[in-house]
Amino acid sequence: MDQKSLAELRTFYASFGQMPVPEGTRVTETTLGGVPALDVAVPSVANDAGVLLYLHGGGYVIGAASTGVPLTAALAARAGLRALSLDYRIAPEHLFPAAVDDALAAYRALLDDNDPARVVLAGDSAGGGLALATLLAARDAGLPLPAGVVAFSGWFDLSLSGASLTGKESVDPVFDAADIQEYANEYLPEGADPSNPLASPLLGDLRGLPPLLLQVGSYEVLLDDSTGLAARAAAADVEVSLEVYPGSPHVFQHHHATEPAAARAMDSAAAFLVRVLGQDRRPADQTTRSAHV
Amino acid sequence: MDQKSLAELRTFYASFGQMPVPEGTRVTETTLGGVPALDVAVPSVANDAGVLLYLHGGGYVIGAASTGVPLTAALAARAGLRALSLDYRIAPEHLFPAAVDDALAAYRALLDDNDPARVVLAGDSAGGGLALATLLAARDAGLPLPAGVVAFSGWFDLSLSGASLTGKESVDPVFDAADIQEYANEYLPEGADPSNPLASPLLGDLRGLPPLLLQVGSYEVLLDDSTGLAARAAAADVEVSLEVYPGSPHVFQHHHATEPAAARAMDSAAAFLVRVLGQDRRPADQTTRSAHV
Repeated sequence: MDQKSLAELRTFYASFGQMPVPEGTRVTETTLGGVPALDVAVPSVANDAGVLLYLHGGGYVIGAASTGVPLTAALAARAGLRALSLDYRIAPEHLFPAAVDDALAAYRALLDDNDPARVVLAGDSAGGGLALATLLAARDAGLPLPAGVVAFSGWFDLSLSGASLTGKESVDPVFDAADIQEYANEYLPEGADPSNPLASPLLGDLRGLPPLLLQVGSYEVLLDDSTGLAARAAAADVEVSLEVYPGSPHVFQHHHATEPAAARAMDSAAAFLVRVLGQDRRPADQTTRSAHV
Repeated sequence: MDQKSLAELRTFYASFGQMPVPEGTRVTETTLGGVPALDVAVPSVANDAGVLLYLHGGGYVIGAASTGVPLTAALAARAGLRALSLDYRIAPEHLFPAAVDDALAAYRALLDDNDPARVVLAGDSAGGGLALATLLAARDAGLPLPAGVVAFSGWFDLSLSGASLTGKESVDPVFDAADIQEYANEYLPEGADPSNPLASPLLGDLRGLPPLLLQVGSYEVLLDDSTGLAARAAAADVEVSLEVYPGSPHVFQHHHATEPAAARAMDSAAAFLVRVLGQDRRPADQTTRSAHV
């Protein structure tokens, strides 16, 4: 990816930050664990319902907290949650694992002020993969885990092993397999193993993870990232729901205001968050231990 | 399977027919397309909401319409549907494809009196596989397809290719891989190809199928039947939802009256049926054509 195409991609992608948010939403700059973030305050927040940490997409190379705001606000409004969109560091300026370090630092900071059972994570594309990587890093650091995670068209496999990478090229309006390879090349340091679970959570040990909701369109080269993660999570006895939206493209949820399938997906994601936040949870110390079973 | 163990299994399995049904449920004998069935009339039926054809489990070897009644009634009551539990022929008295012939005949008979958009199918274990086989047979016969299908712990692969068959043996309280092989041996005629899609819909062409909801416990040797079917359906651009319930055994939905996870599964299944029955549908002739895209 040359400088010019990177700059163009970033400019184009910034337009996602201009999509509408619920009326009355206030967005303010803050930091979380030393990482810049946007506080996304929707009018419908229910006190103590919980807090959502949102991780934007963009292949670990483009996007910013601002591009994640519309999906953050839409999800927060539907679920009645406080929410933050994180400005984790991106490549090529900051290579793997900078993004994971930032997301973990932000999650740790949330735990200072919140019961883990009141925290949920969500993200799209690379942000979905980063959410899963954050879970693995948090579990392996002995931290209690959040109540659940939603991933929209998550990118979970930087080793690019999915058959859909080529099988869905002809119907994916956004990416081909070469694009995905290029993002992986930009993010991973030279010589890094793309199967490192913090880059490719699909290939990690998923035991002990909290409930996961994976949504994906069937017109995506990244389809198998979600079907594969669902199968691996199931094998590891993780509660996982997979929803496949036929004919929908990568992160179709952006279009929830106009597309019925996208609105249904957002409703389902919000209902999932409300449910997992409402579940009885063991005390934090037991939660920590159970994450290592 | 010798005569004695078959008789014992059938006697044991008949106990599922004794599980409670909603108060006021009336069960009467009928036929559907010449196939014996039980009409399961729950008190909460909404007129014209739709009709549910339920296919009981039992490895195509045990079970009967009566053993399917409690799940039929629970699902029908939650979704407000008329419902029938089908007494399709079972092995070894009646080998493959007798069960598929019966289910297809019953489905054809339902189409005589019902808009296909008002018909849904559901089944557990082999009944879930039979529901999928019925879809493939109906599609290939040029029939319009139902509004959706729910499978509880569906058995979709009689070629026994799933890694969970051995991977989950130590945690499955019901079956081991040898049991599953024995059921396949009883059902399939000698020399029959177990990868025939009407026996193993996992291995078939799934294009054009209506929305599917697959629920499965993670403590099942048949786990990969559901994760695999979800992946194959997604690849074929079918709307599919997969729900994995960690630590739950084969057809845990039987215990919806006492187990919260099972109650949640039944609620989710009913909500799915209500949703797909409420969707706008094209006229039947267009539905038929779209099934062949």
